[in-house]
Parts: sequence; structure tokens; C-alpha cells
Amino acid sequence: MGINLTNFLASKSRNRKMGQFQDLDHLDGLSVSSISADLYNSKRDDLAMFYFRDGANFASVYTRSKILSENIKWNLNQKTQKIFSLIINARNANSFTGEAGYRSMQHIAEIISRLLTEKQKEDEDYPKTIKSKNIIFGCTGTIGEKFPEEKIKLKITDLIKGIKYTQNKYIWMKAALAIMTTDTQPKLAMEECKIGNTKVKIYGIAKGSGMIQPNMATTLGYIFTDADISNEVLKKLLKKNIENTFNAISCDGDTSTNDMISIFSTGKAKNSLIKTINDKKIKSFDESLNNVLLNLAKRVVADGEGATKFVTINVFNSKTEQDAKKIGFSIANSALVKTAIAGEDPNWGRVIMAIGKSGVDLNLNKLSLKFGELTIVNKGKIYDHYNENDAAKYMKNLDININVDIGKGKKNFTVYTMDLTKEYIKINADYRS
Amino acid sequence: MGINLTNFLASKSRNRKMGQFQDLDHLDGLSVSSISADLYNSKRDDLAMFYFRDGANFASVYTRSKILSENIKWNLNQKTQKIFSLIINARNANSFTGEAGYRSMQHIAEIISRLLTEKQKEDEDYPKTIKSKNIIFGCTGTIGEKFPEEKIKLKITDLIKGIKYTQNKYIWMKAALAIMTTDTQPKLAMEECKIGNTKVKIYGIAKGSGMIQPNMATTLGYIFTDADISNEVLKKLLKKNIENTFNAISCDGDTSTNDMISIFSTGKAKNSLIKTINDKKIKSFDESLNNVLLNLAKRVVADGEGATKFVTINVFNSKTEQDAKKIGFSIANSALVKTAIAGEDPNWGRVIMAIGKSGVDLNLNKLSLKFGELTIVNKGKIYDHYNENDAAKYMKNLDININVDIGKGKKNFTVYTMDLTKEYIKINADYRS
Repeated sequence: MGINLTNFLASKSRNRKMGQFQDLDHLDGLSVSSISADLYNSKRDDLAMFYFRDGANFASVYTRSKILSENIKWNLNQKTQKIFSLIINARNANSFTGEAGYRSMQHIAEIISRLLTEKQKEDEDYPKTIKSKNIIFGCTGTIGEKFPEEKIKLKITDLIKGIKYTQNKYIWMKAALAIMTTDTQPKLAMEECKIGNTKVKIYGIAKGSGMIQPNMATTLGYIFTDADISNEVLKKLLKKNIENTFNAISCDGDTSTNDMISIFSTGKAKNSLIKTINDKKIKSFDESLNNVLLNLAKRVVADGEGATKFVTINVFNSKTEQDAKKIGFSIANSALVKTAIAGEDPNWGRVIMAIGKSGVDLNLNKLSLKFGELTIVNKGKIYDHYNENDAAKYMKNLDININVDIGKGKKNFTVYTMDLTKEYIKINADYRS
Repeated sequence: MGINLTNFLASKSRNRKMGQFQDLDHLDGLSVSSISADLYNSKRDDLAMFYFRDGANFASVYTRSKILSENIKWNLNQKTQKIFSLIINARNANSFTGEAGYRSMQHIAEIISRLLTEKQKEDEDYPKTIKSKNIIFGCTGTIGEKFPEEKIKLKITDLIKGIKYTQNKYIWMKAALAIMTTDTQPKLAMEECKIGNTKVKIYGIAKGSGMIQPNMATTLGYIFTDADISNEVLKKLLKKNIENTFNAISCDGDTSTNDMISIFSTGKAKNSLIKTINDKKIKSFDESLNNVLLNLAKRVVADGEGATKFVTINVFNSKTEQDAKKIGFSIANSALVKTAIAGEDPNWGRVIMAIGKSGVDLNLNKLSLKFGELTIVNKGKIYDHYNENDAAKYMKNLDININVDIGKGKKNFTVYTMDLTKEYIKINADYRS
């Protein structure tokens, strides 16, 4: 399962940077349950349920792949204003499984909606009828293997029995563990903020850690809030805040057929209604949502397969943000840059190579390059005081910052990635064996 | 220097596939010399000279990087009809070395042209005056390090003394060894053909083996022929034949600042003049040139850093060649596909993932996938007789063929790549240490 990044991620300085999640507790209107459906032929949890007893507003962004997994197709087909449950399984992507895979989603949604409707009758004063269209799915794992519908169906009753109406951080952690594949760490994040005078929570969980790529909703990420926000405003907030968070990370340049980031709002905080994302009352929520997404995105990268270094690539003063993004990802996706970082080799020539191959027009006389605060190239020339020993020392850090100044405009973009190690190969060459 | 692929490449079946080079001998009008200029602080040859005593017509294609090495800038600036010498050094790319790096090219060209002019006076009945503009350079190695002008200058006299007016295969081999960096094998290829009734030779050498990427002249490749062909026709022939050879290979998706493929024609075969590439007399030459380029390109891939498998990706029945190429390279550049191949894991779902992320519009009901002759997906569905054990057995082959049928048109494209192994990381993490 890759190298152990426990200390790496748990260190105080890193958590300070990535944000805390220690205080995740109860989020009103949400219930969580996770269980082992034996999908890995082991006792590890691999199936998680998020249940919104009064339903939740929601929005999702999905993979840009031209091949969609069957659960994503299912999710896209459900026309509903409220989601009552999100089910996530690991081990099997339900992708390229054809109509049978799609029918599995339908069968499971039918059972869950029926059982949850029964539960409503038992638990609620005003029970609601939950339909299969109120259920959506996240799937992750191997593509092209038969979806384990029977194994999952066997466990639905237990999964629903396991529902807790309040959560603490251990319940959150258990759910985050259940959705992991080659991740070595559960990924959680939280922020609190205000909408008007009302305090609201934003909680998130995510999984990586291969097939993490630049465009669009990458990996699985789920955000939960007790704020009351319409589907339309949630959609706009999610699209806006994904750009410099989950769309700014890259592990190996690959895209899955299953990528999915969703946000669910239970409305229990009873804040004043937000009609538009231009409403000033949403500003603090908007920023906090960005923090949660960025926190999760960084955790996905830091736990990227085989990662030993966390790499931040800042591209400054580009003509357009698009250009800055192109250059950032050209560096982040270069196998030669990433292996040099793994080897702690300050081989900055490879960064220059990656800038050159990005295809962005450059004025070399204005190009500057720093590793951290260490100037290497200054306006197109190797810096007079550049000393390779200093750079070699810098490369021993766990966090590497590559700062590129294009000197052609005023637009910036930051991309996050990790190094490329032998461990990545090991994990991916032996993934199924 | 990477794993030893001697047996891999030397096997009869592989050489049959890639074409022979055992018979390289003398090519009229060309002289070859190679030497150690101590650029690696070792005795290995690292400097090669190709000398055309009567000049040669020529054409080149260069990297598409926005950052050009100083030798490429030099080459582009020389306006001349004839080249008298091509000088290639390993170890240092002369890239991002600024004006000083450019001046090094000028200084070396001045010395070489002066010494070769003196040699002309000694050896030739009708001595020619060779100018610095008649000299071009190939450089390969680390970017951003000061160009070793002094070390090279010290050896020019010996290099010229070493010129042999005839070559045999050992002289060719020695030159091919001198231009290697992380290559584990010299790369040579040859074909003989006819223009009209005249027999002509086409010889080539190349080097890989990192920074091999799809677009344009990748790696260094030099083709020599005794045919008499104008610069204009050479240019057209080279551009045309590069598309399905050097532009159809990928090792790691990176592009160097130094990529260069050139063709030189000495004219000694005295064939009838070719005015246009539509001339029927050029047909056999055109095909043979393609064979030489493809042979070299395949050798570059087979010797890609850390390679243990040679992978051919055939994309059939695409709407456009551009689409077929996009899909081919999306598969060839997928780290997840390449690591699965390294692990001999028939994880065909990753190929599906790579097809999906290519961005090409698909009709899934028409998509088929084979590993070799083994059908896995047939018109969008997992093939009834697909058996993973057969596929696992197939993956043990040294040559892996991935055959994708898009079923949307009639265009095909073939891409060549290799697997991604721990050895790749080792080579590139430790490249300079």
C-alpha cells in the first residue's frame, strides 16, 4: 500500500499548512455508516454510506474522460432536487461494465431507497418516501471487472443498521478509510465560517491517489455542509472553487473514468437564503469552501502513489492564466523533473526543458527561476551567485517550491504535485497481484 | 547506464524486425572520426565528426520546444547550400548557456573550418575553402551547464587526424557509441535501394533515450546517403517520413531543447537528378528512407531508459489520423498503462482509461481492443471468450502489441513506446550523481 506517510502528514507543520481536521464532529442533517463488504476479500472497510434524513441540496462535477463509469452515468441520469444517500465503494470502478454495471446501480439504489423509506417510517415524525433517483454513487478501483453487486447487496442491511445520527472524528475517519484504494492516509478537512450571523460547517473527505490529473473533478471528493444553499448556487460555488484546487493538482497525468467531486448541503444551519454567488453573505463560505477543497487536494498529492516530496509549482506574471497553467502542468507532469526531485538532484535544466515544451511563447530575457528562495535563473541568465551546493541542500526538503517568473504579464497559477519514485512503479506494476 | 539490452536487441528475431545494420561499410563522400574529449571525465568517446570532403546537401528538423539549445540556434542561423561537417558531442546540451554557449559554437566552427580548409589543401586536387557556416552541431546532455568549449578545442586536431576516408562497420559503431548518453546500445540502420538504375545507400545513426516525445524531431538522428538529391527535396522527404517514424515514438513524454534529425546527401552515387518528391524515380528511396528512420526510431524506444518491453500501439479505423494519433499517444504516455506492462499485468482497464482521456469522441459500441491476437473488448463489450489467464501469459512477451479498433472511420496510426520500470526512475533520479 505504498510508503507510510503517517509522520509526513501528521507533523504539526504540515497540518498547519494543510489545515486541521481533528475537530470534525457532528454535522446536522447527515448520518454516516461504513462497513466491509469483503470487496478486497479482507475485513477492511470498503463501503460507505452518507445518509441525509431530510435530503440535501447538491452539486457534482465529473471526469472529462470520454468514457464514463456506470455509476457516473447513473448519477447524471437522476433528475432530482434532493439527494438522500451517497454510497461509495472501493476496489471496483464499475467502469466498462456495460449495461450490467448500470443495472447494478439501479438494483442497489432500489433496495437502499426502499430500506431507507422503511427507516424513515420508524425514525421520523414526518416520514418521507425515498426513491432510487435520490441515491447517487461513487465507485473507485479496477476498470473492466464485473461489479460485485451481490457482495454489496448482502451488506446493505448492516450498512443501514450502522447509521449513526451523530458523528465524531472517528466515524469520519472510518468513512474516509473505507473509500481508500492505494491511499496510505484517510483524507479529511474542515472549516467553520459564517453566512450572515449564522455559523456553518464545511466538512470534506477525499481519496487519491493514482490517476490524479489536471483537468476537472479528479479523484473522489465529497463536501458536506449544514448551510442552506440552493442547487444552483452550490453548482456555481463548486465549479469556481475546483479550478485552483482539484484542477490544480497532478500525480501522474492520468484521468480516471470515475472522477467525481460533490457538495451536499443539509440546510440545518438555517442561514438566510443565498440567491446568487455575488451575494456578499456568501464570501466567507466561498473562501472556506476553497480552503477545504485545497486542503483535500493537497492531501491527495502529498499521498500520491510513492510520493516522498510535496511539490508546489508557482508560475508568476504570465500573460494569461491559461499560459501559467500550461507551464505549471508541463513541469508537474514531466517524468524527468519528478525523478530529479525524487533523487534530490537540483537538475533545474529539466525545469527549463519542461517550460520550453509547454508550447507557451516566452521571452527568455525575462524568465526567472527559483527553487524556494534560491535564485537560479535571473532574467534569462544563470544567476551570478547561484551555487549548486545550496540547491542540492534545498532539494533535501520534504516540501519543494519551484517558482517560475515568466515576466510577460500579471497572471499567476499554482500547481501541486509530488515526486516520481520507484515506489510509484512498484505500486502500479503490482497493483492487482 | 541502465539495464543491459544487448541480448534483447541482438536477438535475430528482433534484428529481423528492426532491420539489419551489420553491413554498414563505406559511404562515398563521407568521412567519420570519433574521439574522447574527456567530457565524461573518462576515456569513453564523446565527440564525433562527420566530414563531407566535397560538401553535402542537407535538411534538418528540430525540436518544437520554445527553448532552443545554442547549437540549434547556430544551425538555424547558417545560410548555406552545403554542409562540410557535422560535429556531435555528448554530456553537455549547450542549452540555456546563453551567448557564451552560442559563441562556443562559433569558435569551434571557426577552428574546424580553418583546419579542414588546410586539410583540403593537403589532400585534394581542387581544394575548397570551408567556412564556419558550413559546420553544424548536434549536442546532447545536461541542460544549463557551461559548455566545455576548451576541452573540445583541445581535441579538434586529433579528431581531424582521426578521419578515415573509408568506413567499415566498426567505425560506424564507434561513432554511434560516441553520441550515446544513457543509451545502452549504439543505434545504426541501413538500406540500399535504387534511384532509376543507380544503386544508392542510406545509412543512419541515432541516440535516445530519455526525453523522447511525440512531436517532431525527437532525440538525435543523422541520415547519410550517397544519392544526389537537392536540399529542397531532402527537406520534403525528411518531413514526410518523420511523421510515422520519429514522430510516432514516445518514451517519457518529455521533449528536449536539442532534438534534431538531419539528412545529408553526398551526391557521389551520381543518380539522375530528382526535381520533386512526386518523381517516380524517388519512390524506392522514399520507402527505404522510411525504413531507416523507423528502424532507428524503434531502436530508440527499445533502448528507452529502463525498458524491458517494446510496445506497439496500433490504432485502427479512426475518423482522422489525428484522432488515431491522439489515442495512440494517450495510451503510450500513460504512466499507469506503462507500469502495468512492466508488471506483466493484463490490466486492460487502464488502456480503456487512456482511450477515454484522449478527448477523442468515441462510439463505445464500436470500440474493440486486442492484446496481440487476443480479443478483450469486442464492439464495446468484454469478449465472451476473454480469459485473463491467456492475457497474463501474453504479457510475458518482450514485444507487446496493443490493438485498438475505433470503428469510426478508415484512418490508422501506430505509436511505439516501452514500459515504465523502476530502472527508469533509478536512471533519472541518479542521472548526475
